[in-house]
Amino acid sequence: MREKAFQDYYPDDLSHCFGCGRLNTEGHQIKSYWDGEETVASFTPKPYHTAIPGYVYGGLIASLIDCHCTGTAAAAAYKFEGREMDSGPPLRFVTASLKVDYLKPTPIGTPLEIRGRIEEITDKKVVVMATLSAKGIVCARGQVVAVKMPEDMIQ
Amino acid sequence: MREKAFQDYYPDDLSHCFGCGRLNTEGHQIKSYWDGEETVASFTPKPYHTAIPGYVYGGLIASLIDCHCTGTAAAAAYKFEGREMDSGPPLRFVTASLKVDYLKPTPIGTPLEIRGRIEEITDKKVVVMATLSAKGIVCARGQVVAVKMPEDMIQ
Repeated sequence: MREKAFQDYYPDDLSHCFGCGRLNTEGHQIKSYWDGEETVASFTPKPYHTAIPGYVYGGLIASLIDCHCTGTAAAAAYKFEGREMDSGPPLRFVTASLKVDYLKPTPIGTPLEIRGRIEEITDKKVVVMATLSAKGIVCARGQVVAVKMPEDMIQ
Repeated sequence: MREKAFQDYYPDDLSHCFGCGRLNTEGHQIKSYWDGEETVASFTPKPYHTAIPGYVYGGLIASLIDCHCTGTAAAAAYKFEGREMDSGPPLRFVTASLKVDYLKPTPIGTPLEIRGRIEEITDKKVVVMATLSAKGIVCARGQVVAVKMPEDMIQ
């Protein structure tokens, strides 16, 4: 059995994200894991996630990078604080900015691999660099500036 | 009756985008129009497009900005060439890069207004600046570098 994903540690009331919330039954429910110093997630787009026939739509690519990177930010923040993801208080990050460079058309019908790497970390902010690959070829690169979720966003 | 949207002029084989294709029955089918020198689109997220309860998920915001801006790029390119959108050959743009700054949490349950403004235009590339607002408040800003779709992407 594989270890729990970063998103499996999110508290229930922060687990409704369309991209990565395990309680959002309509959503993508992406799952991110450590792989050495990097993080990794895999996602297979649905046949209707097209840009033009044969290729994945860019909005999905942006979404996958976004959610994988905020998950990566949370996981990195626990590590930074020297504690486990199941310890309290919970850490959750929101996106301050997202940048995606679309390098090549991304083929549909194959799993996509999203990898993250911590570029910068402080007690309030994590900058994560990402790649999104299909069949071993990097099709998009991203950068997410993730900031600790403000208390007033947690209802 | 309102005029045709930019996306209504896309040829059938380029109308399957999840974000803006009128033939993608699973997708968002966003519609963009001129409003003076700017362009505008409106979209009401579904209740499940949440980030955390009460707020819109950032991946959707990125998608709306992306598709509205590539539509804006196409419309601007026809204007640049001095011809109507129903004249041939068809012009269609893809995203080279997308940048979104999330300024404020975007409330869910209300229509979002996405506005575009041409920052730069050449015969191959259009740079579009965008805002996304809810109830008159700008919640996100974006920039899309859109490039003319390569011939080999059109199957």
